[in-house]
Amino acid sequence: MEIFFHEISVSTRQRIEIVDITRQVEEAVTKSGVKNGLCLIHAPHATAAIVANENEYGLINDIVRKVEEVFPIGAGYQHDRIDDNAHAHLASAFIGSSRIFPVKNSRILRGTWQNVFLVEADGPRNRRVVVEVLGE
Amino acid sequence: MEIFFHEISVSTRQRIEIVDITRQVEEAVTKSGVKNGLCLIHAPHATAAIVANENEYGLINDIVRKVEEVFPIGAGYQHDRIDDNAHAHLASAFIGSSRIFPVKNSRILRGTWQNVFLVEADGPRNRRVVVEVLGE
Amino acid sequence: MEIFFHEISVSTRQRIEIVDITRQVEEAVTKSGVKNGLCLIHAPHATAAIVANENEYGLINDIVRKVEEVFPIGAGYQHDRIDDNAHAHLASAFIGSSRIFPVKNSRILRGTWQNVFLVEADGPRNRRVVVEVLGE
Repeated sequence: MEIFFHEISVSTRQRIEIVDITRQVEEAVTKSGVKNGLCLIHAPHATAAIVANENEYGLINDIVRKVEEVFPIGAGYQHDRIDDNAHAHLASAFIGSSRIFPVKNSRILRGTWQNVFLVEADGPRNRRVVVEVLGE
Repeated sequence: MEIFFHEISVSTRQRIEIVDITRQVEEAVTKSGVKNGLCLIHAPHATAAIVANENEYGLINDIVRKVEEVFPIGAGYQHDRIDDNAHAHLASAFIGSSRIFPVKNSRILRGTWQNVFLVEADGPRNRRVVVEVLGE
Repeated sequence: MEIFFHEISVSTRQRIEIVDITRQVEEAVTKSGVKNGLCLIHAPHATAAIVANENEYGLINDIVRKVEEVFPIGAGYQHDRIDDNAHAHLASAFIGSSRIFPVKNSRILRGTWQNVFLVEADGPRNRRVVVEVLGE
């Protein structure tokens, strides 16, 4: 069994921002040498999330707006009394801070329009994303 | 280590539709020969999702309505200028296009009311669902 | 390959409640003897969910309120004709009944503020949470 870890660093610039990390994820899978197995993309953060979807400019904006709509900033949250980012915690908890893909024939098995995004919900910040590839 | 892939084909008939794929997932686990491990159910699509829940007729309708309510069709999305399915992309991104279960004693370890569903958000379409069973 | 299963029992007291199970999850990882791999935290229930986030008192209340807001109790659901917990099924399906973390150097690789919570959506109940640690 092979288990390979790779860490991606991302510097975000906006409060809410979508960052495409597909290329770095695929490079990690290639480097891992794993032919078949699993690829876990995990943000070790409580105010960010990971999602998979199409990298189309308008859709990226739609995702940002949907995050803002479902998890509005400063909507009377109790956590905002000690910090100002409860919306981001809620987005991270509900959307999830990881996604997992099959690895088959040395590639992550994803749809044509299924890129991997970091969802920044409390930027700008420096973020880490852990890519783990496990298999043989 | 055993790694087994199986592909399920689903033809959907409605714009928003819930399709129970539990039987096919369980057959894949049986065929895999894996006794203990993990079972990943993954839709390689950016406009569909995978969820786990009870297969009760009324609840299926409730899930469809909740998808329509949280991700309404044609709600002024930017992506709809080039396509007409932004709602489906958002549903896929937020709900997630996969679920993962433990495999124990040659069966997926799921609750009594925890069936596996494909969530079609932009049908009718032909969909693929990849089932990967990894373990020993 | 090591595959380790541990079951956590949780007794909830409220209809909607957040229960921190981080300590039990970490004990399972320690007991497993797995150095590097994956840790799946899975609730085999259709009316509960698993999320990761910060254990801060106000934020816990914010999460409960967000569950109640997005999945309101008794909002005319069809499933409520035969049971009274459609809101909880929807919360479980959309949020997801599991989360998965990397295990690295014998510890789950989680952020400083990333605790693991059971989300009870139809309590009070006795709940099981399955922790599976797979790796080497």
